[in-house]
Formats: sequence, C-alpha cells, structure tokens
Amino acid sequence: MSVGCTHIYGDFVPLEESKISIFDTGFLHSDVVYDVTTAWQGYIFKLEEHLERFAASCAGFHLKNPYSNEETAKLLAECTRRAGCEDGAFIHMHVTRGEYAEGSRDPRFCENQFVCYVVPYVWLWGEEKSKAGINIHMTDIERISSKAVDARYKNFHWGDLIQAQYQAYEAGRDDAALCGPDGNLAEGPGFNIWVIKNGVCATPDENCLLGMSRRSAIELCEMSGIPFELRKVHPDELRHADEAFATSSAGGIMPITAVDDKPLGNGAPGILTTQLFNNYWHQREEGWCGTKISELLDG
Amino acid sequence: MSVGCTHIYGDFVPLEESKISIFDTGFLHSDVVYDVTTAWQGYIFKLEEHLERFAASCAGFHLKNPYSNEETAKLLAECTRRAGCEDGAFIHMHVTRGEYAEGSRDPRFCENQFVCYVVPYVWLWGEEKSKAGINIHMTDIERISSKAVDARYKNFHWGDLIQAQYQAYEAGRDDAALCGPDGNLAEGPGFNIWVIKNGVCATPDENCLLGMSRRSAIELCEMSGIPFELRKVHPDELRHADEAFATSSAGGIMPITAVDDKPLGNGAPGILTTQLFNNYWHQREEGWCGTKISELLDG
Repeated sequence: MSVGCTHIYGDFVPLEESKISIFDTGFLHSDVVYDVTTAWQGYIFKLEEHLERFAASCAGFHLKNPYSNEETAKLLAECTRRAGCEDGAFIHMHVTRGEYAEGSRDPRFCENQFVCYVVPYVWLWGEEKSKAGINIHMTDIERISSKAVDARYKNFHWGDLIQAQYQAYEAGRDDAALCGPDGNLAEGPGFNIWVIKNGVCATPDENCLLGMSRRSAIELCEMSGIPFELRKVHPDELRHADEAFATSSAGGIMPITAVDDKPLGNGAPGILTTQLFNNYWHQREEGWCGTKISELLDG
Repeated sequence: MSVGCTHIYGDFVPLEESKISIFDTGFLHSDVVYDVTTAWQGYIFKLEEHLERFAASCAGFHLKNPYSNEETAKLLAECTRRAGCEDGAFIHMHVTRGEYAEGSRDPRFCENQFVCYVVPYVWLWGEEKSKAGINIHMTDIERISSKAVDARYKNFHWGDLIQAQYQAYEAGRDDAALCGPDGNLAEGPGFNIWVIKNGVCATPDENCLLGMSRRSAIELCEMSGIPFELRKVHPDELRHADEAFATSSAGGIMPITAVDDKPLGNGAPGILTTQLFNNYWHQREEGWCGTKISELLDG
C-alpha cells in the first residue's frame, strides 16, 4: 500500500481506492481547479494564502468549494495526519464540477465536489536534480493563452505542458519552458521561471500561474535586498542569463543550470540562486508562514 | 440504475461504478484523448473513420491505445449491446495516460488506459431544441489555440468552452460559439459551426476539431449538389448568415436560428439546413456508413 491518504466523496480512503466518477466533468472536460501546498516539520505552508488562491481559482471557473476555508483546512490537516506525513507532505486539493443532471449540459446545476490527497513531500525533479539543477528545453509549443483559460486559476489544462515535457525528455533534457502567444516566457509544467542578470532577478508577470513559491521568492528577495522585476521576460534572457531558477511547491527554489544543453554561467547553481535556496529552506525549517497541524486538529 | 455500460480497467461495469483513479493523469493533467460515435438501428456510424481519428488523436498526444482497432471495435459493440442501446447509442471512447511511476513525471513510461462508455443516444441540446434550432451566444473567450493544444486531436481541454457556455446560459442563450486567436470562428462546445449565405455553406478549416459530422455534412452537400467552402469564417458571417447550423455526433445537423438573440432569416430552421437535416436522418435510417453491431459480435 502506498503512503498517503485521500479525501473523496466525503470519506478518507487509501490512495489505491482514490477513484472519481468518469462522469464528473472534472475528468470529462477538465472542469476542475486545484491547489497545492506542502507541510514541513509539522507546519502547513502559507495555508491561508493557498486557501485564498484556491477560492479565487474556484470563483474564476464558477465553481464552489462545498467546504468553508476553515473546514478545508481541517480536512487537509486530517488527511496529512492520516497519511503520516506531517513532517514532509505534498498536499493537493481540488474542486471538480461534478456530474451533469441527466440530459443537461448546464454547469450551473452540478454538485461541485471537493477532493484532496496527501502524499510524502515531492521534489519536482527528484531531490538530487532539484538541488543540483536541471537542463531545460525551450519548446516551440505555445502555453495556452490566458485569453482562453486564465492561467491565474490553477487548472489541469496541461496538454501543452505535457507535450513540451515529452519533447524535453526525448531530447534528453529534464523539463520544458514554454512561451505564451506573445513570444515571451510563460511557465513550465508546474513551475514559474526566474532569470538573473547582473544581480537582478526577473520573472514573467503574464500568462503564468501567480505561484505561491514565486511569491516566496519575491519575499526572500525582499528580505535579502536582492532586486527583482515582475515583467515580460524574453526567452533569450533565459538563454543568456547569468543564473536561472524555477519556483514550485515541489521543491521551493530550484536551479536551472542549462538551457537546451548550453550551461548557464559555469553550469553550477548560481550564487544568488543558492542564497535564495538556502534562505528558503532555513525559513521552512523555522516554520515560516506555517500553520501548525496539531493546532488545527487538536485545537 | 442508469441505462448504460462502461468498460474500464478491463471490466464491463454499470455507470455508477465507472470510476477512474484520481492519479491517472487523464484526470490530473487532462492527459487524455477521446472520440465519440453513435449507433442507430443496430449500426455503428462511421466506425472505421472514428477509430482512425481516435488513433490519430492518440498519436498526436503520444498515447497508445492498448487495444487494436479491431479489438476496440468489438469492445464498443459489446458495451453497446450490454447497455441495451443498439438502436440508439452514444458511444464514448478514451485513452488516458495512466499513472506516473513513483517519483517520475515522465509520460513516456505510463501504462496508457482505454475506457469506453455507452449511454442512450444524446441530442446535444435535447431532442426538441436540436431539431427546432438554438440561440447561440458569441463569446469573447478565446478558443484554445492549436499552437498550444492541437484541436485536431479530440481532447478534454474544455475550460474555455465551459466558461463560454456559462456566459451563454447566464445570458439566457442555448450555447456558445468561440473564435480562435486570429479572431475567426473556431467551434462551439462539442460542435462545428456552419454558415450559409446565398446558397453557399461554409465552415472553419482551422483551430477546430475536424468533426465526423462536419465530414458528414460535406458528404451530404456533395450528394445534393450544395456548394460549400472550408475556409476562415468571420464571426460577422455567422451574425449575418441566411441560415446556420451546427454539426455534432450528438444530433447530426442542428439548426442555429439566432445569434445573440437576433434571429437569422425568419428565425426558423433554414431551407438548406432542413434539407441537410432530413437527408442526414434518412441516410442514418438506411444504415449509412454503418457497421452492423450483430456482425461485429456474432461474426
């Protein structure tokens, strides 16, 4: 039995029994939003901010979480405890549209479903590569435009991202970076992208998820007095960066050390990237922006 | 118990037991392609063409149907018979990516899953409206670009379509029409769009599914000597059409009789639309392009 726990259809079940109706349009039309946070040393990270973003994603898709934020927080905590992952958890929550009434295609009358699952902490590229840095593939597949599906609402429209990853793996690289329809960098599959040139960090401000770890990187830059910019970023800026890194709940701050097989700088994680990485984990160990699981559950 | 039958994880099960693992990236990343055909009077419609397109969708997403086309055909027929729907069936087939190996995000090493379900024949807008015509809503939500997710590969990236439908319903209209990023008509949620002006039919040739019912309409135009064009179609051509119709497996040829509450022509189904509708159903009754279910199953 795999380590983890799911809450679905009102029950806590093992991962192997975590099944959803194929008639839930969360499956049939990817009519679902999600969010991800993590737990570390007994603390859930930025719980309130994640719940706020989750609620915004729901609203953006005209979905409604059947649970209040307070109830959701308790379910996530309970699921984390049942999974036995309080010291290192990957916490995934979803609201799906649910099933259509018979003969109807009207999304307004579906009973929206909440699902969450918790598994041991995930490093996006495995622990070793997430720390040592990856070789990223610049794809010509376009990221879905926010004019079609708004990237601010965290969703599973990943067809472009998966095909980009497929290209990357076939090319022997570790993951992919996508541009939006305007030709500027958008994001990668599950991560935001940062470039550093002459001591200044920059990350795209459009057609990408406004990631929580992206926000953490902003806060860490502010704490350390590292200048940063939120703006359009051309892919050539990534190709010619002094350093680059990705941000994701599944690893925090993770070095990008090569683009299309060409090393950035000397090919090792950069100085500022390493500083941000160390600060991130130092803060996490200290319970930074953490909500204590035991307090959520035991009052 | 609802009428229908599903084949999933190698078993035939009732609709109520048709559940898929939430860890199948068909759910988690909408990494899934599908196809839909119908049965009428004991015949499955254009089975070979649908299986060919389904295989093309799989290939486009780097997925592989674990069953051959011949095996798939038998599964669809068996599922239709078990559903008791041989005289009027809606037949849905899917290949999902499956689950990632633990710690991996590599789509190349997943065991792809085949799922199909059969329910009684579905009319896209209910039988009455699908025959009498609908009032369509022109939305400003953009259809996902084929540069991101290729619309030729039938997929569940419907976030844009669902939000457009939501707008349509809120405006008291029946369904929505979307334009692609170039500002020309793309498609609606599950249907292609046709306009008729001065006796000439036209339908978009880009950023839309190359629908099987769209193809049927082309064949019916050819049979009846009705001129038609496959080309860019501006949304104003829909607004100012003499007639318009939608094509979908869920209804065949269906009149669009108003755009944004403004009637097309006299507000009734147009003459050519009615001719195509009648020809479509006459042909279907005759077993047009049909594969006899009993021959598939009983040899």
